[in-house]
Amino acid sequence: MDKTINVAVIGVSGRGLGLMSNICDMEDVKITVVCDLYEDRMENAANLVMELRGYRPDTCGDYKEAVKRSDVDCVITPSSWTAHREIAIASMKAGKPVGMEVGGACSLHEIWELVRVSEETGVDCMMLENCCYGREELTILNMVKQGLFGELIHCQGGYQHDLRHEIATGLENRHYRFQNYLHRNGEVYPTHEIGPIAKYLDINRGNRFVSLTSMSSKAKGLRQWIVDNKGENHEHASLDFAQGDVVTTMIKCAHGETIFLIHDTSLPRVYSRGGRVQGTKGIWMEDKKSVYIDGVSPSEHEAGEDAWEPLESYMDKYEHPLWKEFRSSGVKGGHGGMDFLVLRAFFESVLNQTPAPIDVYDTAAWMAVTCLSEESVALGSMPVAFPDFTCGKWIDRKDEAPSKYGLSKVFQECFEA
Amino acid sequence: MDKTINVAVIGVSGRGLGLMSNICDMEDVKITVVCDLYEDRMENAANLVMELRGYRPDTCGDYKEAVKRSDVDCVITPSSWTAHREIAIASMKAGKPVGMEVGGACSLHEIWELVRVSEETGVDCMMLENCCYGREELTILNMVKQGLFGELIHCQGGYQHDLRHEIATGLENRHYRFQNYLHRNGEVYPTHEIGPIAKYLDINRGNRFVSLTSMSSKAKGLRQWIVDNKGENHEHASLDFAQGDVVTTMIKCAHGETIFLIHDTSLPRVYSRGGRVQGTKGIWMEDKKSVYIDGVSPSEHEAGEDAWEPLESYMDKYEHPLWKEFRSSGVKGGHGGMDFLVLRAFFESVLNQTPAPIDVYDTAAWMAVTCLSEESVALGSMPVAFPDFTCGKWIDRKDEAPSKYGLSKVFQECFEA
Repeated sequence: MDKTINVAVIGVSGRGLGLMSNICDMEDVKITVVCDLYEDRMENAANLVMELRGYRPDTCGDYKEAVKRSDVDCVITPSSWTAHREIAIASMKAGKPVGMEVGGACSLHEIWELVRVSEETGVDCMMLENCCYGREELTILNMVKQGLFGELIHCQGGYQHDLRHEIATGLENRHYRFQNYLHRNGEVYPTHEIGPIAKYLDINRGNRFVSLTSMSSKAKGLRQWIVDNKGENHEHASLDFAQGDVVTTMIKCAHGETIFLIHDTSLPRVYSRGGRVQGTKGIWMEDKKSVYIDGVSPSEHEAGEDAWEPLESYMDKYEHPLWKEFRSSGVKGGHGGMDFLVLRAFFESVLNQTPAPIDVYDTAAWMAVTCLSEESVALGSMPVAFPDFTCGKWIDRKDEAPSKYGLSKVFQECFEA
Repeated sequence: MDKTINVAVIGVSGRGLGLMSNICDMEDVKITVVCDLYEDRMENAANLVMELRGYRPDTCGDYKEAVKRSDVDCVITPSSWTAHREIAIASMKAGKPVGMEVGGACSLHEIWELVRVSEETGVDCMMLENCCYGREELTILNMVKQGLFGELIHCQGGYQHDLRHEIATGLENRHYRFQNYLHRNGEVYPTHEIGPIAKYLDINRGNRFVSLTSMSSKAKGLRQWIVDNKGENHEHASLDFAQGDVVTTMIKCAHGETIFLIHDTSLPRVYSRGGRVQGTKGIWMEDKKSVYIDGVSPSEHEAGEDAWEPLESYMDKYEHPLWKEFRSSGVKGGHGGMDFLVLRAFFESVLNQTPAPIDVYDTAAWMAVTCLSEESVALGSMPVAFPDFTCGKWIDRKDEAPSKYGLSKVFQECFEA
């Protein structure tokens, strides 16, 4: 491999185009082929690269061909929710590292397949859809690893995003959420927040998810939106969506930490990831944009509500070195820059032939939340057990991604080196 | 009964004295007897009344005698957590309505006893410990009942209060939390927030709690506090507290609504009740002091984060009439006035011989959260079923407290009448 990485992008609807825009900002990455089931999407995608970079990638309707091409070093798959597994497996079997979008899993079996194929081929499978590289999340990671919150006890996060328009118009826009919401019920989109939380809690590197229980509310938001916006006689106005409007999930970790997740996408609201990290020494609450650190922040007894300190006032000292560098060189890409960084982390691991900072075991643990949540909801919120996809290796595993894109305490040494 | 109500106060430590200060603001209520296991507490309590009202109540070491006295019309019991049941039962059997403080229950059996004794005697048992009469909570109740949030889907609330000092010094201060935290593990203090949530959701009046599941984190906060503040050689520094630092609970209701509760009292933080109400038309988030109402608030698409509107801007229109009146006559009492109002609601029901707005079935359902949560935690977060303490009456029950202290839509008519 020379110093240009050739990538195949498989699945080029909205999310695919968004990622491609980010990739086109990287001089050392070339999109050699775009792949989709729909001709018009491939045309759009090829045109986008022509416009941004002045060359036209090939188009290919069959991902099995695309992943095998000699001008493809790695693959990213922003395809529909239930198509990632087979694409990722084909990529790994072709020897090409793969960056997956979400997709929570439909079954534990498919995750085991991913894990085993990755182990057998020695090729990595990285979950791209997450907020690990958000500026706030990386700052919190830095504060966690430097011990500001003390021993971690409890974390929270959510995907809280009013997607009623996107979901309800999903059929005409060929968007996968419509069909998934019609038929499935559970924590269908956990990676946004479980990603950073898993990194705070050293999941798969000394800790692991042990069990979860999920509860789903009734499903009323989408139908109400359809009635209000398309009329009560619209063909979708009488549909019974299976997906509850609010799905809450509690996860227990091997060392006694607890996690609360909330999925909330079919009711009116303002976007929030609802992050929260809580330990024996302090707490961060994203919705308050604030932290409270024992013995550092003003005493609650004296200051009351004003004892909360803005997270922003900790940024000077604790902003992650990767973000400091990123800001000084000019923030790029969508979703506040984190899409660029997570893609960059993937490509750097391909370029340097180092393990991805989010590897197949992380991908597996995060994807498992979805099918376990569906099982728990189906069983009346029964607790269900997480498999140990590492088969015991989590006890001794260290962070194996010793680059500045690493997501453990190692990153500090990398920047100092 | 003349127009003065005579009340016995049983249990007169900190909370008892707080309630007594409120009562001393009421011209038509007389504290005729104070009761406690400790002489010094009774002395303090009697002195407080002398100071505030110029008369000295009797003291009595035996609650069984106190509740039977002819100069006692009703009883309130701010006693220790596990002593409420027997006091409440003795009061009801003596024909005296009883206002209970928390105590979540230790078993379902004791709640059934409360319910059956209340039914058999025709005497009410009202849970006083709750935030139903908080200004924000009553405003939200008003907005809920006027349909601003549409059909309710999900509610949240918590008791999030750094009580490490109080708990860790509990033995020397004869405070019940120390022993309870040492031995129990669950949602031990749910009534704060489950009270208003139950009223938003019409629990026991057309709806009911069906099941819950609870998860407990490890317990590290108290020991850390003891080590930091009393030294690692202190006799309590090696204690293993059973109560997890963060206990989360999910409750399912008969009509598909979900509730999330969080108990968080042994880690550093700033106080918050973390209220949230969410329906098909809007959302309230207490930690953001904000609401978002579909079609009323600015569009999120255009305004982003600024689409949140301060709850305060809805107060003019939706502040509960009881609070408007309360403010115009001068807010009294502790915890921002809500202690005064909840006590007043109790005494008005005694005075007018009308059902309490929070009756024995409400008390039962709220107390049940604690023992069910302990069971669920003990069983690895298994879902456990709520009994129907009304034995089916919840289907048809209406709000039977048609006073301005009522907690259903009826209050509006009362104020208009």
